[in-house]
Amino acid sequence: MRLPFDTSDTLLARAAWSRIAEPGEESAGAAVASLGPGEALDWLCHAVENPHALPPHVRARVEGWATRLPGLDSRRELEVLARLGGYTILPGEDGWPAPLDDLGPASPFLLWVRSDHAIPLEWPPGGAVSIVGSRASTRYGETLAAELALGLAEDGVAVVSGGAYGIDAAAHRGALAAKGAPTVAVLAGGVDRLYPAGNEELFRRIIAMGAVIAEAAPGSSPGRHRFLARNRLIAALTSGTIVVEAGLRSGAISTANHAGRLLRPLGAVPGPVTSAASAGCHHLLREAQATCVTSVAEARELIAPLGQVPVQEPLLGTGLLDGLAEDQSRVLDALPVRATAEIDSIARTAGLSPAEVRSALGLLELAGRVRRSGNRWARVAS
Amino acid sequence: MRLPFDTSDTLLARAAWSRIAEPGEESAGAAVASLGPGEALDWLCHAVENPHALPPHVRARVEGWATRLPGLDSRRELEVLARLGGYTILPGEDGWPAPLDDLGPASPFLLWVRSDHAIPLEWPPGGAVSIVGSRASTRYGETLAAELALGLAEDGVAVVSGGAYGIDAAAHRGALAAKGAPTVAVLAGGVDRLYPAGNEELFRRIIAMGAVIAEAAPGSSPGRHRFLARNRLIAALTSGTIVVEAGLRSGAISTANHAGRLLRPLGAVPGPVTSAASAGCHHLLREAQATCVTSVAEARELIAPLGQVPVQEPLLGTGLLDGLAEDQSRVLDALPVRATAEIDSIARTAGLSPAEVRSALGLLELAGRVRRSGNRWARVAS
Repeated sequence: MRLPFDTSDTLLARAAWSRIAEPGEESAGAAVASLGPGEALDWLCHAVENPHALPPHVRARVEGWATRLPGLDSRRELEVLARLGGYTILPGEDGWPAPLDDLGPASPFLLWVRSDHAIPLEWPPGGAVSIVGSRASTRYGETLAAELALGLAEDGVAVVSGGAYGIDAAAHRGALAAKGAPTVAVLAGGVDRLYPAGNEELFRRIIAMGAVIAEAAPGSSPGRHRFLARNRLIAALTSGTIVVEAGLRSGAISTANHAGRLLRPLGAVPGPVTSAASAGCHHLLREAQATCVTSVAEARELIAPLGQVPVQEPLLGTGLLDGLAEDQSRVLDALPVRATAEIDSIARTAGLSPAEVRSALGLLELAGRVRRSGNRWARVAS
Repeated sequence: MRLPFDTSDTLLARAAWSRIAEPGEESAGAAVASLGPGEALDWLCHAVENPHALPPHVRARVEGWATRLPGLDSRRELEVLARLGGYTILPGEDGWPAPLDDLGPASPFLLWVRSDHAIPLEWPPGGAVSIVGSRASTRYGETLAAELALGLAEDGVAVVSGGAYGIDAAAHRGALAAKGAPTVAVLAGGVDRLYPAGNEELFRRIIAMGAVIAEAAPGSSPGRHRFLARNRLIAALTSGTIVVEAGLRSGAISTANHAGRLLRPLGAVPGPVTSAASAGCHHLLREAQATCVTSVAEARELIAPLGQVPVQEPLLGTGLLDGLAEDQSRVLDALPVRATAEIDSIARTAGLSPAEVRSALGLLELAGRVRRSGNRWARVAS
């Protein structure tokens, strides 16, 4: 069979593949990578008419793809996109996010973009982070998602999410409030269907200040499996993924799994263990070596390039000693509360030598914790 | 100088050292380990009278210990203990917790014990766990500490803590409620001073059903530095330490640090990131590779011997697919909501071959998700 458009046109051919194959279908990606998008289309059109020559597993795929060939004309989908003010980005073009290439044969054929900006996916110097989570979120999670996104965007970090209700929407809203770095929503269906419809106003603001993108051609419905495939893009696009709230069956867990497979840093925000909405985050902390993220600073650290991570002071748990060295603490404890004492008596109680007691008393006096009167010492009331 | 008791009596000599040296003072432990407790005492009595022969750092320690020699008579402290119904356990004796030996020269000289039971520190087959946390706890943390302790004690795990207000007390109370395995409180001062006094009733119940123990001799005050030294015992005694709530300066962080140094598993219970009482736990999750613990089962897993840890099913985040394989999900999504469709039309929408669609429809029919009428298929309303 013949297609009604010029298959040697790379844009048209890639657009066609984004309609024919399911997102993330590696066999299609491999065919396009080895033959080129146009020749792969020509091969498909030929194979459809000679299916008996194909090995069974290839034949099944060819027959699946072939169901979408009748009536296929990518020029129409490009027109739809143009009417919406959108544009495409092909692999290697200006604005193509190179990190997507880490997906190999599961990399998108092209990106369908709706944005008021020319190159929205050229990440700002601050880099980019994915903030995702459950649709079934709590006020706690939404507040944190918005605060993390706001703080990161104010620091010039682009915030990527999935445009869904709950945590995703909160993350986009937080990023938009910063009026700093762009925020990007990655859709499971086509960019002509801003799904879910209840977030349409949010999507309009994202288009104005960032971008709404998809790998599926306009007209594609956001089927359930496409959400799972879409999650690999969210994970691949950025330097790290943070799961704010996720139940054990949340799709955000699949985004986290993708981040792990792509060797992207993975963060999880803890919450009350009594909250089912945080159970997925706690699972990621336990089983997926996710990093515990509780603040904007910790989120920045998560996505910081290696070698640029600030060194943390270890906690010593010495709050009990109140900033005192052990000898000083022993001497202070050895002083009676409402009386004075001589050095020998202090030494006996503290179990320190008189020389050690004298040295500790000197430092405590400098710190204003004890005072001397003649040969005797007393605490200074704090 | 001469001591008024027989220094060749191991119990008396060790009891004397537990009065002379500060808890965890490694130089005293090393002297006792190399000379034996009695000879080490004799050496100290001799050194006190010949201090100029000593290197300066040894002299400082000798002078410190010497402050506690005048009036020292361990028979008196043993009498105090006997009047309280308590007893001692020496290293190597029945009931001596062998894990303490991991502390090397910082191991206690002996344990002073108050318990209505003969060998309370012979851990039950379920093992032992330390549950610790802040005195400045919240209802959230106290509830979790009690629930973890209750569940573990019901499973026959001994619960060790520090007898302090807050998380420690909640852990002891939870363990007592189980009426199962014993619970043990490790004090910073002597066992004759049940500190804090506000927990006295709790201590009485612990003595009845478990034990209150200390390494410092009766009469020793619970000085601040002794709390830090005490924490190493809590960490060493058990197969794992769980921090339930801890501020960043909490002494529980020092217990966690000891657990890490002793290669004991360390768990931390997450909480709201907005709660300062959980900040130390989140720090342990981030920086100390603590394991996230959110349930009794996860606490059990923490202290389970290697090789006895149940294998966790990985989470796939496929809640979206609702238990369906991807092909089935694509076919179900391709069926119109309120009409029927033929296989070719379903194949076109799903992008699958007719054979794949037939196979998926068969499985969906078995699962009661679709039904056939003639050549057409329809969803079953769920």
